[in-house]
Amino acid sequence: MTEAFTTLAEPGVVMGVRLGIGQAGIKRAGRDDLLVMELAPGTAAAAVFTRNAFCAAPVILARRHLAAAAPRALIVNSGNANAGTGEPGLRAARECCAGLAAALGVAEEAVLPFSTGVIGEPLPVERILDALPATLASAASDRWADAARAIMTTDTRPKLRSTVFSGPDGRRYHLNGIAKGAGMIRPDMATMLAYLATDAAVAAPLLDQLLRQSMAQSFNRISVDGDTSTNDACVLLATGAAGGELITAADDPVARSLAAALDWVSAELARDIVRDGEGATKFITLKVSGGRTEAECLDVAYAIAHSPLVKTAFFASDPNWGRLLAAIGRAGLGELDLHGVNLALNQVPIVAAGARHPDYTEAQGQAAMAPAEIEVAISLGRGAASAEVWTCDLGHEYVRINAEYRT
Amino acid sequence: MTEAFTTLAEPGVVMGVRLGIGQAGIKRAGRDDLLVMELAPGTAAAAVFTRNAFCAAPVILARRHLAAAAPRALIVNSGNANAGTGEPGLRAARECCAGLAAALGVAEEAVLPFSTGVIGEPLPVERILDALPATLASAASDRWADAARAIMTTDTRPKLRSTVFSGPDGRRYHLNGIAKGAGMIRPDMATMLAYLATDAAVAAPLLDQLLRQSMAQSFNRISVDGDTSTNDACVLLATGAAGGELITAADDPVARSLAAALDWVSAELARDIVRDGEGATKFITLKVSGGRTEAECLDVAYAIAHSPLVKTAFFASDPNWGRLLAAIGRAGLGELDLHGVNLALNQVPIVAAGARHPDYTEAQGQAAMAPAEIEVAISLGRGAASAEVWTCDLGHEYVRINAEYRT
Repeated sequence: MTEAFTTLAEPGVVMGVRLGIGQAGIKRAGRDDLLVMELAPGTAAAAVFTRNAFCAAPVILARRHLAAAAPRALIVNSGNANAGTGEPGLRAARECCAGLAAALGVAEEAVLPFSTGVIGEPLPVERILDALPATLASAASDRWADAARAIMTTDTRPKLRSTVFSGPDGRRYHLNGIAKGAGMIRPDMATMLAYLATDAAVAAPLLDQLLRQSMAQSFNRISVDGDTSTNDACVLLATGAAGGELITAADDPVARSLAAALDWVSAELARDIVRDGEGATKFITLKVSGGRTEAECLDVAYAIAHSPLVKTAFFASDPNWGRLLAAIGRAGLGELDLHGVNLALNQVPIVAAGARHPDYTEAQGQAAMAPAEIEVAISLGRGAASAEVWTCDLGHEYVRINAEYRT
Repeated sequence: MTEAFTTLAEPGVVMGVRLGIGQAGIKRAGRDDLLVMELAPGTAAAAVFTRNAFCAAPVILARRHLAAAAPRALIVNSGNANAGTGEPGLRAARECCAGLAAALGVAEEAVLPFSTGVIGEPLPVERILDALPATLASAASDRWADAARAIMTTDTRPKLRSTVFSGPDGRRYHLNGIAKGAGMIRPDMATMLAYLATDAAVAAPLLDQLLRQSMAQSFNRISVDGDTSTNDACVLLATGAAGGELITAADDPVARSLAAALDWVSAELARDIVRDGEGATKFITLKVSGGRTEAECLDVAYAIAHSPLVKTAFFASDPNWGRLLAAIGRAGLGELDLHGVNLALNQVPIVAAGARHPDYTEAQGQAAMAPAEIEVAISLGRGAASAEVWTCDLGHEYVRINAEYRT
């Protein structure tokens, strides 16, 4: 039973997916802000959308369309989220879908719409429709890098990962993924969009299961459940265009390789989002172990990840472990015995039994905080569960970007 | 039945309280960092302490002492929180109490210790003990302003409020309050300490009730329950030194006036803390109405108050109501119907029925965001409950202060 996959520096071709890139003038002139993904007939899709009660018009429509038909195309615009736009926003999203559906000769419900950018501004539908012909004319199967760039908003870098894996019969399959999002601490900070596509043939229920499993250890490790933006979406597509039998079982060898590749692609994209955090200068891995449950380990990790005091200390490379302890202490764990708590920064033991480690020196702490990548290892000493979360620091650039964005 | 009280610009004298101020060299040289409050025999006390599991040594000890004896003195140092200091920290707090108890000739348990400042550094007990004689020699009943200054850490302004009220027999009573705390959004950002004292004679159970009622609408409106620092404490003292009968019932006229004065002093001090928020340039009042319960109104208010995206928009005077809607949408309210949601900034209607108000213009929004005090009124349209919370913006100064503090 093999789970092997190979990572590709140059993105491979996912058969059955063609990517068209265009400019609708939503972002500044000369910037790509439109992506159309054309999908081969028979493509299966799984998707997870934001749980925000104020979900954007395209999210409402994409959910409906996905329930009604198998998707034949995705249309994604950046620069405008089409959120908080009421009925006119829903109409605008529908017009985009209808325009693309007419151009491709598919049903309107076979088009899934996505938007990311400023909330509350009317979507410039006419300009999007006007840009469609050129966008479709540009479509090709090797434009993954351009696609990753077209969906960026405050991102400073495109986010793209590519893998290849083989079936037992030697057949080769690809899995590519692109994502956007530069939120500081969790996707609610800025829309997160991710599109993952393979040319293996996977039954929809299995595809859904694979997506949810993978998200739980990747995009949901930089986010709190329910704490999502109005537009977050993650879509996994299986075109089947590489041939081979339809995979329906999780223990199928191809399913296992796909799952492994998917886990890697999702986790790398999720970490790429954190690394590109708005104004981030540090990438922080929070490893919490010794909890009674995974949930309480996550509570501790998120209490730290969401503390502006901790994050500004990381920005300053200040080994302010007192702020870390204070965050652990207010994570809401019942009967937490401080004497069981240990903490290390980049393998330097800082806290032992709930107080400063006897051998700790400030110089050691400062050395541990200096690198751009920092691992915070916390053991709670009361169980066998563990969890890992990724976050970044909070610096002046975050304030600058978010105070200036939109105005 | 009268509830009248008068506010005093110059703090009045609370009989039975003497305030000694000293310098133990914990803060920079020449700064007051020690406060001793001497209390007349028979003083009743009520207190609320942090719920942080990592509560500091003085919190542990103050709780114990309060349960064991009626307090005769408080000792407060600023500059060092004596938190995360383990057994040596507890010993240090005990030595401070013992030293003051010996000097005053009272039981060790009759002294309540408090500390605020840096976490994880050993408390310089010797220097505190050395500073005690001069501190006690300086004690007087008119040093409230000096006391408010001595307990400051990152505060830029002392926080002091003073009131006077009369009993039915014409007897005059005072209530004074001082506080420290410059946390950005909630007391977990920095320790909050508050000391409130009256010279009325109040039975301990009633005193406790009055304190909790008042806190629920003041200090707990800038804080999430359970989200507290390692050292937070709020103490209400009643010396009885003004004479009069012991008040035991909440409907006693003096109790009613005291409650009204207490509500005002507490709310003003709480707002003073927000106004002095680290790097704050805006004071924001969040009024949420039309909720099914007060709890869900608070959930919405805190989702906004804790959103870095919303807070940076306030800093930029940017009427980014999309970020406000996104925060409301992820507050976790079940079955929230967006069409019921309305929002106004400083009385300018921005959002109607979940989308941009038809008459709204960007110019109006910017005008509404310009003042230093901004009221955000949100109606959820699904009930009769309401809640009010105070917060501030997030700007460059917050990052600067918290990145530089301690290092």
